[in-house]
Amino acid sequence: MQSACESKPWKHWRHITKLDPDREISEEDLKIIVESGTDAIMISGTQNVTAENVNHLVSMLSSYDIPKILEPSNPESIIYEGVDYVFVPSVLNADVKWLRDIHVKWIKSDDIRWDMIVPEAYIVLNPSSAVAVLTNANTALGVEDVVAYGIFAERFLRFPIVYIEYSGKFGDVSIVRALREALSGASLFYGGGINSAERAAEMLKYADVIVVGNVVYEDMQKFMETVVTGQQQPEL
Amino acid sequence: MQSACESKPWKHWRHITKLDPDREISEEDLKIIVESGTDAIMISGTQNVTAENVNHLVSMLSSYDIPKILEPSNPESIIYEGVDYVFVPSVLNADVKWLRDIHVKWIKSDDIRWDMIVPEAYIVLNPSSAVAVLTNANTALGVEDVVAYGIFAERFLRFPIVYIEYSGKFGDVSIVRALREALSGASLFYGGGINSAERAAEMLKYADVIVVGNVVYEDMQKFMETVVTGQQQPEL
Repeated sequence: MQSACESKPWKHWRHITKLDPDREISEEDLKIIVESGTDAIMISGTQNVTAENVNHLVSMLSSYDIPKILEPSNPESIIYEGVDYVFVPSVLNADVKWLRDIHVKWIKSDDIRWDMIVPEAYIVLNPSSAVAVLTNANTALGVEDVVAYGIFAERFLRFPIVYIEYSGKFGDVSIVRALREALSGASLFYGGGINSAERAAEMLKYADVIVVGNVVYEDMQKFMETVVTGQQQPEL
Repeated sequence: MQSACESKPWKHWRHITKLDPDREISEEDLKIIVESGTDAIMISGTQNVTAENVNHLVSMLSSYDIPKILEPSNPESIIYEGVDYVFVPSVLNADVKWLRDIHVKWIKSDDIRWDMIVPEAYIVLNPSSAVAVLTNANTALGVEDVVAYGIFAERFLRFPIVYIEYSGKFGDVSIVRALREALSGASLFYGGGINSAERAAEMLKYADVIVVGNVVYEDMQKFMETVVTGQQQPEL
């Protein structure tokens, strides 16, 4: 069987919708999201993510064919049934626990389905976000620092995905643009604050994939605009 | 141009001779080493390695066709002229400086010849060695811990080489055997205390490549025995 890392399905995606297992979503909204044209659903949260609430969201999605990605925040919430891929984040600019230790411990304790695993190199840049606080991320980075982390992730550690995470805040476009110029093999994901057609278009100039999350819980109309923009933007 | 990481020349090697730029070697001994049948020369040391003594050793090797690998212990001693590959070690079980920070700093400050760079995932296991002391390595690891580090290096971080380093001491064969069983893609390098035909044969049962160093400065006859053994052992 060809592994997810070899087939790289995300190379054809531009728009991912991130749903938080810790937040309620109605059957109606879920149907609209899945049928919106978004390329994949990512099941992901930082706080209070458990096997139970992950399973609940996965079961709500079970009748839909759309690609389903689990992005666990801890090894305890990993499930393989009902999802197509498990994207495992590793935070580059944080305590080494989130780059190395949590993964080594997981490998030691678990029987891992490596064919479904896709490692992601996160660079966390919003100091107020839950993920930055949790991981003790060093967010005081200049463009050159972020680019160095990105090249380290792509060429030295061979991550297939470099993920710029502003989580809840719209980020610095110049950073995403500089990474676009520096990276050649890894796919560039951007997440944070995309809640309009304009912001989606702005980041899609440079990112391969935008990840849209919070707006689905706030304004479905605005969410739909981000999807339409994702479909209109040509692949990089 | 195909990069070193794509062509993977070390896949055909079984025996590497490691020479320390900080130690004297005669022209005569160098000729014997290069013509011994060893597959490659690695220029590598932990202490007092400078661009000057690296250049001196490289120039002594310049008339020989054998593959030449520079394995720098710090970014300041990297040269590209006169060598074929630059193997850059990253120590997995040590302070994060040696896994991440030194490399990010290097990427930020240098114009790197990526086509020559081959990242190595070191697991340092002799607590008395200079490299363990320098990097503050956690050497108190059981077989399962070392295997978890190895899988992390191979499958999560995609290092092409996992290097078990006992530096100056003959290591635990059961650890190398367990890694042999766990790894599927990365090449398994072993270094430390190989100073006889028997020890070479013992580690070559499980390692793809043995790295032989100190014995060339102590007993050239014993060194030659390790090479002959390397040539007799079938590829794994």
